[in-house]
Amino acid sequence: MTNIKEEVRSHSLFRAYPATKKLEELARHPIDLSLPDQLTPERLATYYAESCGYRLLYGTEKVTEEVIQALNQLAQEAHALEKMRRMQDGEVMNYIENYPCENRPVLHTATRDFFGQSRRAPQAQEAGKLARLEAEKLKSFLAKVELEKNFDEIIMVGIGGSDLGPRAHYHALEYLLKPGRKIHFISNVDPDDAAAVLKKVNLKRTLVVAISKSGTTLETATNEELVRAKFKAAGLSPREHFISVTMPGTPMDNRDNYLETFHMWDWIGGRYSTTSMVGGVMLAFAFGFDVYWELLRGAHDMDQAALETDLKKNLSLLSALIGIWNHNFLGYPTLAIIPYAQALHRFPAHLQQVDMESNGKSLTQQAQLVDFQTGPVLWGEPGTNGQHSFFQLIHQGTAGVPVLMIGFKKSQYGEDLEWEGTTSQEKLLANLFAQSLALATGQHPDNPNQYFSGNRPTEILLGEKLTPYSLGVLLSFYENRVAFQGFIWGINSFDQEGVQLGKKLANKIIERLVAQHHPTEEKSSYPLGDAYLKHLESLC
Amino acid sequence: MTNIKEEVRSHSLFRAYPATKKLEELARHPIDLSLPDQLTPERLATYYAESCGYRLLYGTEKVTEEVIQALNQLAQEAHALEKMRRMQDGEVMNYIENYPCENRPVLHTATRDFFGQSRRAPQAQEAGKLARLEAEKLKSFLAKVELEKNFDEIIMVGIGGSDLGPRAHYHALEYLLKPGRKIHFISNVDPDDAAAVLKKVNLKRTLVVAISKSGTTLETATNEELVRAKFKAAGLSPREHFISVTMPGTPMDNRDNYLETFHMWDWIGGRYSTTSMVGGVMLAFAFGFDVYWELLRGAHDMDQAALETDLKKNLSLLSALIGIWNHNFLGYPTLAIIPYAQALHRFPAHLQQVDMESNGKSLTQQAQLVDFQTGPVLWGEPGTNGQHSFFQLIHQGTAGVPVLMIGFKKSQYGEDLEWEGTTSQEKLLANLFAQSLALATGQHPDNPNQYFSGNRPTEILLGEKLTPYSLGVLLSFYENRVAFQGFIWGINSFDQEGVQLGKKLANKIIERLVAQHHPTEEKSSYPLGDAYLKHLESLC
Repeated sequence: MTNIKEEVRSHSLFRAYPATKKLEELARHPIDLSLPDQLTPERLATYYAESCGYRLLYGTEKVTEEVIQALNQLAQEAHALEKMRRMQDGEVMNYIENYPCENRPVLHTATRDFFGQSRRAPQAQEAGKLARLEAEKLKSFLAKVELEKNFDEIIMVGIGGSDLGPRAHYHALEYLLKPGRKIHFISNVDPDDAAAVLKKVNLKRTLVVAISKSGTTLETATNEELVRAKFKAAGLSPREHFISVTMPGTPMDNRDNYLETFHMWDWIGGRYSTTSMVGGVMLAFAFGFDVYWELLRGAHDMDQAALETDLKKNLSLLSALIGIWNHNFLGYPTLAIIPYAQALHRFPAHLQQVDMESNGKSLTQQAQLVDFQTGPVLWGEPGTNGQHSFFQLIHQGTAGVPVLMIGFKKSQYGEDLEWEGTTSQEKLLANLFAQSLALATGQHPDNPNQYFSGNRPTEILLGEKLTPYSLGVLLSFYENRVAFQGFIWGINSFDQEGVQLGKKLANKIIERLVAQHHPTEEKSSYPLGDAYLKHLESLC
Repeated sequence: MTNIKEEVRSHSLFRAYPATKKLEELARHPIDLSLPDQLTPERLATYYAESCGYRLLYGTEKVTEEVIQALNQLAQEAHALEKMRRMQDGEVMNYIENYPCENRPVLHTATRDFFGQSRRAPQAQEAGKLARLEAEKLKSFLAKVELEKNFDEIIMVGIGGSDLGPRAHYHALEYLLKPGRKIHFISNVDPDDAAAVLKKVNLKRTLVVAISKSGTTLETATNEELVRAKFKAAGLSPREHFISVTMPGTPMDNRDNYLETFHMWDWIGGRYSTTSMVGGVMLAFAFGFDVYWELLRGAHDMDQAALETDLKKNLSLLSALIGIWNHNFLGYPTLAIIPYAQALHRFPAHLQQVDMESNGKSLTQQAQLVDFQTGPVLWGEPGTNGQHSFFQLIHQGTAGVPVLMIGFKKSQYGEDLEWEGTTSQEKLLANLFAQSLALATGQHPDNPNQYFSGNRPTEILLGEKLTPYSLGVLLSFYENRVAFQGFIWGINSFDQEGVQLGKKLANKIIERLVAQHHPTEEKSSYPLGDAYLKHLESLC
């Protein structure tokens, strides 16, 4: 199958939709936001959608009503809403036709489906019940901790989906941290990551939450061993301090080694696991169970909104469609996420995983290589910081970069100062709006160095205040945005085969190093790039 | 000049170089790294360059000797080395012909030109003397702090170049933090950024370092006011705690308001200012003056290496050229920087500014709009973390992403554990090499979901250990890489006009908000998008 490139790069469903043809046609003459009279108040007053406390302002995207209609048609032709319903109902969405694949339901939505009458299918209700039992177990566990007052700190040991989401959400809500509580994170197999954290903690008062869906993640296993050794060296029993979050039946699902074990299941993808016990244990410990519950409520409400047929109420779908317009039809290769909220400083890194690991694929669910661009490179840092850094390129570079800005009307701490007539929060919002405006309109003066082409697209997601509820909404907004794009492209957004080859080769190099350390052991063979590997090792 | 697009997009110097034609020709049939026998030990043994303790391994880039030769020819035709020498000699490199521009020398290299006999031109030597005097002043100031033991903490107040570089370098060397010292950063105008920091500090024992080249940066001025108010509320005199770093003669160059003032000059760009007092005050306080000095020595040594005519000893130029090959000739729109060193977790964010703010331009120095792609989007997170996140897209996505990996043979803390036969540091390096190999070779099995195209380029910068010296080398490596690319593209990498329009519009919105707060004041007029602004404000 070395000719796979040519063999299976035939016409995909995505390219065959009538709406795709229409959008290709429309993309030949998109509107120019920099023309006078383009950005009218009427446009802005029309081009917004609203749900769960957020407004999505898209008047500064390069869309017209005609484009939006065609995108809506695309969603219908791709059965996007139906697939979302089937996903939330627990049907098997994680598959590739005719080939081995994970073949699972995708039910992270069940980890927050606890509010109101669920109208989901039985298997989704069943999943919801399991998830709720874990949440109840967590509540009891934390009540005991509260009573016995034996722990103040948590070290989270996990990587990828077991790190980025929990970490981003921790920082987003840090203003609610319970007095005296401290949270640390160890993720990288780089031993300096653990060393830096272990310098700071009071082991005696520390819970370690080791998280691995499979129970066998190399980095997490290694770091857990490293932390266990530290506990033993301090004369403490790891069994009294370590908690695991894993699937039933894995090596980490073992109460002999853990004070408590919380479960996730194969129907929760790592990158979608923040609202499960993966994020839950730490978030509820740090902020209180009620805060965690509010996060779930927000996420659930937005999951419901993702089933809305009216685009103006379905922000995930609308934003997904405009993203496809920008990426597939206008040809922008990347997407910048700029939260105008310092508390969201690690949120882009989380969304980077959610998006790129889900939609960085080249295969349709019919096992054909795609004949179109799938997921964009996603990157970002908070505003206004980014304005003093890479915004130069966004304004005047040759690479066009669509920007999704996230902002809130109120600050979290409420500790603001009016200086020179405005508060900092007002200055922050003024900057957010100004960037969106500047990128759209541009500036065409005589000095070419002060020339801004304009006509660069942005979109603003505007909320009241970053709270546990609105954070949950935001998380679900983006998770479902990614799922919708995958549905429309017709790819499997829920597996991650692309991480396997690197793992396999790393294990080969590791085996070889082991063999060098212990020369009596038998060496295995390395057909792939053997000589290359050997040379690399000589550099170590 | 609304027709600027058509008018000045004529043929650039870059497109006219004979080497450019040759490279376009070569790019039609680049090598395929995934072919059998492509990655030979001979190739790897040949395709490396070495300087200042680092090896640059580029055997996994899509280059041949012919490509490298043509790139070298391009560097010569663009007078890249001569421009680097002129830059380090203090000639005016920050200019656009025939139009108002900053028109300045670019002499950040002078802020570390203190080692050995300088053969630089007089103006560069003069700059070096000024910089050295500031360093001596810092040394005395810190000796006094050491003696009086009156301060343990620093709050850095700065944004962009006054934040990202210092912050990245602080984390990179955190393993050397002096006992009892604490460093905090406030950058964002979001009031929650300051509020979160101010909750943690002991104001009485705290120095505040306020940094702004112009002395008028909105975010920094606002945050400085906020912190000053906090000191006053605590009954402390800001004058006894606040230090400024700014240019001579700015509003912040005022000893009435500051305990001490350190200078930078107009010939240091913000994003290139880490080795000046902008980074120096905090780094020397946190780690000791000697550590700061070692950082400077490393940066200086690599500045010298950037003048080398032998490509095999000039890593900055070699990497710059391969970057141009990937971006302009093979068409990759982005560049990922993946440090396999957790301590460098904020380094990509710093390099993102250095690169994108420098080369995210559309104008040649002859004031023509470019007819080629300038700087790529740069992004990244540490490995192995990234492997469990966005590497899926790098391996199997439709967007090709060249990767620059940075690794070290030894850890910083030296607190490692052998587990299952290898240490964590070995596992880390095994992963680095394995990713490079996997991306190059790919895998072509029968299951298309496990298909990896391969032939995806990477480059490895490998050092011994991340120390103050090697960090300085790394900084200079990348700064000079960016400068070389700018020289070859013929753009001005040293101004940042692209940040102005957003600032201007933000100020308009802020003025309007002030007018709303104080309705007696006269309103100014807003010709640009007036109605749009009005509508936006109604959302605030």
